[in-house]
Amino acid sequence: MLVTFLSDFGLRDDFVGVCHGVMKRIAPGLEIVDITHGIPPQHILQGALVLANTIPYLPEGVHLAVVDPGVGTDRKALALRDASGRVYVGPDNGLLVPAAERNGGVADVFELASPEYALPEVSMTFHGRDVFAPAAAHVARGVELDALGPALDPAGLVRIAVPEPEFGTGRITATVLYVDSFGNVQVNLSREQLEGVGILPGSSVELAFGPDRYYATAARTFADAREGDLIVYVDSYGNVSLAINGGNAAALLGARPGARLRILLRGAR
Amino acid sequence: MLVTFLSDFGLRDDFVGVCHGVMKRIAPGLEIVDITHGIPPQHILQGALVLANTIPYLPEGVHLAVVDPGVGTDRKALALRDASGRVYVGPDNGLLVPAAERNGGVADVFELASPEYALPEVSMTFHGRDVFAPAAAHVARGVELDALGPALDPAGLVRIAVPEPEFGTGRITATVLYVDSFGNVQVNLSREQLEGVGILPGSSVELAFGPDRYYATAARTFADAREGDLIVYVDSYGNVSLAINGGNAAALLGARPGARLRILLRGAR
Amino acid sequence: MLVTFLSDFGLRDDFVGVCHGVMKRIAPGLEIVDITHGIPPQHILQGALVLANTIPYLPEGVHLAVVDPGVGTDRKALALRDASGRVYVGPDNGLLVPAAERNGGVADVFELASPEYALPEVSMTFHGRDVFAPAAAHVARGVELDALGPALDPAGLVRIAVPEPEFGTGRITATVLYVDSFGNVQVNLSREQLEGVGILPGSSVELAFGPDRYYATAARTFADAREGDLIVYVDSYGNVSLAINGGNAAALLGARPGARLRILLRGAR
Repeated sequence: MLVTFLSDFGLRDDFVGVCHGVMKRIAPGLEIVDITHGIPPQHILQGALVLANTIPYLPEGVHLAVVDPGVGTDRKALALRDASGRVYVGPDNGLLVPAAERNGGVADVFELASPEYALPEVSMTFHGRDVFAPAAAHVARGVELDALGPALDPAGLVRIAVPEPEFGTGRITATVLYVDSFGNVQVNLSREQLEGVGILPGSSVELAFGPDRYYATAARTFADAREGDLIVYVDSYGNVSLAINGGNAAALLGARPGARLRILLRGAR
Repeated sequence: MLVTFLSDFGLRDDFVGVCHGVMKRIAPGLEIVDITHGIPPQHILQGALVLANTIPYLPEGVHLAVVDPGVGTDRKALALRDASGRVYVGPDNGLLVPAAERNGGVADVFELASPEYALPEVSMTFHGRDVFAPAAAHVARGVELDALGPALDPAGLVRIAVPEPEFGTGRITATVLYVDSFGNVQVNLSREQLEGVGILPGSSVELAFGPDRYYATAARTFADAREGDLIVYVDSYGNVSLAINGGNAAALLGARPGARLRILLRGAR
Repeated sequence: MLVTFLSDFGLRDDFVGVCHGVMKRIAPGLEIVDITHGIPPQHILQGALVLANTIPYLPEGVHLAVVDPGVGTDRKALALRDASGRVYVGPDNGLLVPAAERNGGVADVFELASPEYALPEVSMTFHGRDVFAPAAAHVARGVELDALGPALDPAGLVRIAVPEPEFGTGRITATVLYVDSFGNVQVNLSREQLEGVGILPGSSVELAFGPDRYYATAARTFADAREGDLIVYVDSYGNVSLAINGGNAAALLGARPGARLRILLRGAR
């Protein structure tokens, strides 16, 4: 009986703590693993990517995820099961789908509609506490998904676009997906895509970021470069990333999620 | 056997972790729910309000709360029971009283005086670790409150003033109580007080904050307004608050706890 | 079955959460106490000091610690047992040794070499998740240390220098070790060293920090001084520290770890 929990609530306020309290009232003894509550406020894409990346490392259980700019509107509240049997609880805004798709796709999905599995009073602005956390706790203690509300057609779920890299003549244009707190910059390229254009550990790489050019080295790990050198590497989730050995690449580049990075290929301008 | 824990310790240092360690040494297997450790340093009023707001959502147990600018002075250390049977452990500086009063009032209160239920060595500056956490863990594992020290007269407890709104001719002057990490601004007005002056969802509201005027809309939820519009709404704890749909109201207004907000009533200047 | 966990991962990303997930997959029901994840990035000395300070307050168990600038290099991964029987898991960069030395010294140490106790796929950049957390969880569920890999000679472990104060004519030159989130400034002096030069509670103390001079009072606790006054006190871990009653000493002094503080002794210039 375990719930994992991801949100954009931050840890300064009581939002996370009160959701823990709500879940433990419903399911005494429940174990809760906080994946992170540091998703940038209302940034659904980042929440979806972090959830999809981390799921393989998490125990089976109920995966509660709340990044919910549409709270109080008619966006639906969901309990979704993937083909591997994992259950996700959260809003119908695309947050849950990429994780389910990495685990065989959406098997079935139900709307959280039964007031029996929400708090007695549901606010207009905090469904994490009033709707999602209660539903996750009830599922964790054994309530069947079809008791929560009507089945929905998986084809009708809201999906979010994950940006794709563009492969042009002599360049790849990638998008920054994530900047971690060490300043490492993850982009939307896979190891295979990088190697497919001939960039292997040891290669020199020319990058353009806005009006500026940078020279980096493809490396397997931070320590393959001298301190202060920019490297291009495949991070621990398999995404191509930029880092500085002993430094902060995001600060050097001014990189933020959504920014575009061009990788200039050898022999091209 | 569960302790909830609220403090102004932050999460950067080891203060919270070491209190968890102390409690788990005393009460192996103890469950701990962290409400928040993000109370602004030494801000007793905010700690008291967050504790009072969140208690209804928390499991029964021992509620440890430490915001303690008077550590090392002769301020007393308390274990306090409310009329509903919940137990609070913390300093006698007003932090615990509002929560108890929302649960039927203070039933009885004891001074933490018995060295048996503190750590063997008590520092002058960290009673969270040395006095309060140990007492909370001992109570959680079954120690009776009257074993902790002498009973005190509830009438003698330190209380803090919660600011009250002022209802003048053509205006209400309210005080900012809390700014959350989304930038939503909570003031000391209730839904009933707002509706009592005729402000209902859909109303236009004129606000004055320092020398500046703002126009807001009374709304039920963020999405009732256009993106970027300022709204006045009743938050998930029942307090009147200001928000911007998709934005940060505190940043726009420069609002901080203690600041004063005037609501200008229709037909008045 | 309990693991304590200290790192420089911060709480914004998923690094801590995913390590929790990995451990709970290996050891269902495992209790985890997070000491702190706020060690400044890659600051091994601070991690080592916080671990050594907090160990006496923590339950016995496995003490996982990850501050690992050398990830991906040939630095070894360790499981280390101290003379009291506590087990530490982390990198061979000096992080674990000071804690073990406060508990009777290093009894035995093993290299984490058996792939059976790491994740099936080990990345080049996140051994916290792939090597250290799995090993800690396996030890917590009962795996013997000598199953993890070959025994190492404790004399060959990497050690870090903890700076020592310099006692000169008329002055002590100390080094700032830590600045906490309240702005209290810990230096590398003990109570005994301070009292040895005649500085006792109530004494006036002249300090020099860079080009600036400050007058402080030796005190037992914050409230022994007037609000806004600088004090020199012995903190709750026994280290000499500077604080301002009701204020932020680090902000006043501009103090950061590694900075040097001179204490000017009476009658001297």
